[in-house]
Amino acid sequence: MQDYSLYVVTDEELSYGRTHREIAEQAVRGGATVIQLRDKTRSAHDLFQIAREIAEVTRRAGVLSIVNDRLDIALGAGADGVHLGQDDLPIAVARRLAPPPFLIGISIHSIAQAEEAKRQGADYIAVSPVFETNSKSDAGPGHGLRMLSEVVHLVQIPVIGIGGINHTNLHHLFDAGASGIAVISAIVSAPDISAAARAMKEQILSLTLHS
Amino acid sequence: MQDYSLYVVTDEELSYGRTHREIAEQAVRGGATVIQLRDKTRSAHDLFQIAREIAEVTRRAGVLSIVNDRLDIALGAGADGVHLGQDDLPIAVARRLAPPPFLIGISIHSIAQAEEAKRQGADYIAVSPVFETNSKSDAGPGHGLRMLSEVVHLVQIPVIGIGGINHTNLHHLFDAGASGIAVISAIVSAPDISAAARAMKEQILSLTLHS
Repeated sequence: MQDYSLYVVTDEELSYGRTHREIAEQAVRGGATVIQLRDKTRSAHDLFQIAREIAEVTRRAGVLSIVNDRLDIALGAGADGVHLGQDDLPIAVARRLAPPPFLIGISIHSIAQAEEAKRQGADYIAVSPVFETNSKSDAGPGHGLRMLSEVVHLVQIPVIGIGGINHTNLHHLFDAGASGIAVISAIVSAPDISAAARAMKEQILSLTLHS
Repeated sequence: MQDYSLYVVTDEELSYGRTHREIAEQAVRGGATVIQLRDKTRSAHDLFQIAREIAEVTRRAGVLSIVNDRLDIALGAGADGVHLGQDDLPIAVARRLAPPPFLIGISIHSIAQAEEAKRQGADYIAVSPVFETNSKSDAGPGHGLRMLSEVVHLVQIPVIGIGGINHTNLHHLFDAGASGIAVISAIVSAPDISAAARAMKEQILSLTLHS
């Protein structure tokens, strides 16, 4: 079973100068279980090189590497999977090109999209966004969190949440049955990425040990 | 042997409202032998749908469909090949993911890039640009044309030219040994795409019949 518990999405625009690779290395050192490379601006050539470096970092650590959107880059770089959005290649097409054990994840914004994702062969689902904003992240269970809970009960594949998740609210997701949390700024923007990841990981371990 | 003689690159920004699919249909009706779908702005989801439609149009006509940059979309949509730039996925990586008869083409800007492309397994090479500008397109053989001629003699795979090619200068390319010409505006911006393609095709046929 894959461990999606602490899923870190790299983002160089929020990282105060740290590169995708540095984010990946530091997050993995802190206990991240999945690294998703996400970059909408670089060339395919650059992304491929970065994806290959990250796949090496994660392989050594025994964690998963995922590439956002580009299935060809993910396959070429030896990543473990691809993460698709609703505007990307249809899951069924990606599944045909990349059979298991290659992982295909997808962001969903409704119950109908979650059912369709499962039908088309997704390996995991990311409910997005769970929380509306970062600034109101401790407002408690919201629309996204209720949807997450419904999706968990509906599909028999791992479900993670993304959007506005930090150390003050992550327990809600595991309470709702999530297999993991996907975080960007809470880790990527932290002064010490590794320490931020480690703190979240310890919280997750204590939550999941008691469940 | 593939027929690269009249290779049309779709471009909705230069087509006065005609869609990629309409460009493809009309160019094929006029005798285009290859259609390359090129669009840097649409989502992967939209590109995939368009690529699938174009692959159907070209399959019915017995001509080739190529997708720019995105190998995953090309493979998923059942296109005949992908066209890569120097900033895209390395050819050797694409070749590994997509063995022959899937076609891999690449734009090159130097002799060294042409040699490297052949070494990595490219099926054809596009010398770009052959002419510096559209407005001086009948200025005769230039830097690009000399490079094209060198590349033709160096590599034993089909070589096409792109950049500033129109009905007044296309004969230079076939004189230089090109297997074909790639055109965008000369066909895509024409009031009648089909007629513009047909006129070029007739010129190409008369040139290649006499050679």
